[in-house]
Amino acid sequence: MGRVTVKRPVLRIEDGTTRRRPDTLAAEEPLEIRVDGRSLAVTMRTPGHDVELTHGFLLTEGVIGHREDVSTARYCDSVDDAGRNTYNVLDVALAPGVAPPDDSVERRFYTTSSCGVCGKASLDAVRTRTRFAPGDDPVTLTPEVLAGLPDTLRAAQAVFDSTGGLHAAGLFRADGTLLVAREDVGRHNAVDKVLGHALLEDAIPAAGTVLMVSGRASFELAQKAVMAGVPVLAAVSAPSSLAVEMARESGMTLVGFLRGTSMNVYAGTARIATGSTGDASLVGAEATSG
Amino acid sequence: MGRVTVKRPVLRIEDGTTRRRPDTLAAEEPLEIRVDGRSLAVTMRTPGHDVELTHGFLLTEGVIGHREDVSTARYCDSVDDAGRNTYNVLDVALAPGVAPPDDSVERRFYTTSSCGVCGKASLDAVRTRTRFAPGDDPVTLTPEVLAGLPDTLRAAQAVFDSTGGLHAAGLFRADGTLLVAREDVGRHNAVDKVLGHALLEDAIPAAGTVLMVSGRASFELAQKAVMAGVPVLAAVSAPSSLAVEMARESGMTLVGFLRGTSMNVYAGTARIATGSTGDASLVGAEATSG
Repeated sequence: MGRVTVKRPVLRIEDGTTRRRPDTLAAEEPLEIRVDGRSLAVTMRTPGHDVELTHGFLLTEGVIGHREDVSTARYCDSVDDAGRNTYNVLDVALAPGVAPPDDSVERRFYTTSSCGVCGKASLDAVRTRTRFAPGDDPVTLTPEVLAGLPDTLRAAQAVFDSTGGLHAAGLFRADGTLLVAREDVGRHNAVDKVLGHALLEDAIPAAGTVLMVSGRASFELAQKAVMAGVPVLAAVSAPSSLAVEMARESGMTLVGFLRGTSMNVYAGTARIATGSTGDASLVGAEATSG
Repeated sequence: MGRVTVKRPVLRIEDGTTRRRPDTLAAEEPLEIRVDGRSLAVTMRTPGHDVELTHGFLLTEGVIGHREDVSTARYCDSVDDAGRNTYNVLDVALAPGVAPPDDSVERRFYTTSSCGVCGKASLDAVRTRTRFAPGDDPVTLTPEVLAGLPDTLRAAQAVFDSTGGLHAAGLFRADGTLLVAREDVGRHNAVDKVLGHALLEDAIPAAGTVLMVSGRASFELAQKAVMAGVPVLAAVSAPSSLAVEMARESGMTLVGFLRGTSMNVYAGTARIATGSTGDASLVGAEATSG
């Protein structure tokens, strides 16, 4: 597609001197996701791997659970002013018997009748919607393998070095083997592309894997990992409070600040082979806020 | 409110040694924004400054333009399982004569009849909705002032140092004076809080200001700056292609990779007092994609 990056002229100012030069930017375009012809969502994404992105989005929103839940996925004939296909509208036909998403996919996720909208309701909504139980996954891995993931992910990033503008996500085996890496201007899109790829490979639930992200671990990313059955989520930067609660409640291992040979394990420490034992001193050590 | 950070136990692994210690996390909770009792949006945010966040969101979505467009903003009586107010639902009453938002605020932003959904439609939608014209703002500023903004913003960040998990946004005068700084787990929320603060101070349109963000400059952030009449947007990291196009089309200055004494100016170079002249070699130097 040739649209992952674009070149633009820029005025570079450095220590008081200025020069004009071309600069490579990460491309950003809207993608409209339709299900059986009806618009479900618009996301601002880096073009490319749109079919994976759409499958990953539908997986992590609970609409589909397996590749067979989708009959076809194709670009609509939307055209720009010059009559060219924009390749910005993807229509998915669900397989017979698969229930269509209701109109309020996003709001349902956060709202329950008991407390309106709160962190606990957000966790409850994921628990009632997920098809998989990453908490039951017996996989273990070593700190050494975890410490190697960021470098592997960076090496796999085709675009980051030239633009500095992309988030990355990668899915790894527990021995550190990279299964797939994707980049996007939106961190949630990078994760959806990776998980959509796994779904298309019939590898969902993603048992025995580590999902690694280049930035922070928010609730949204933790939720996506749980919905895909990923047992270990690792991030270069900090997790949020609700991401940690999501991991603890679902039995997922959550690693943050993964830099060099150091890291913080916020949940599911039993999967990390350190010689230390178990989760008992972490789980329930403090009441959750709500 | 005491919920900006929360403490959680963590297993710290460093060079093969492990220890348990408490860790400070950035709090993340859903906020439901209602207008006249109807749910408009749910955003995952760091609690605090919710009234500013809501005003900023309504401003940058084009629902309101001035403080007087809102009659009241108050937390609903939503309670959690223990009967405590969640402070996660904020209801805004619009002033008489202010048109309520339609149901599809988000989708309208990206869709036109001409090309379905594409970058150009996203730009067009902002142009038809913005009340202000940052392109007409005659403000100028020096590279030295710009170079000082990141340090000032970091110094104003109350929470980042303890959690590493928050995005920051700050609004500055052209002489580098900080007007307001806010933090959030979501970068769009940090910007909405800053712009909502300005609106509540009767300082919208934000003429003569610089909006500085701690991360990347996406289309969404560029759009918010334009909707608030901000003439200069500066970011520590890279802009996306569509953010640059948004800046060029609206006449906004866009600075990226603002680090130390160096920076890239992607649009609106005439506002940067470098001794170099004008925009002519940048604007229109390449056809836009889209």
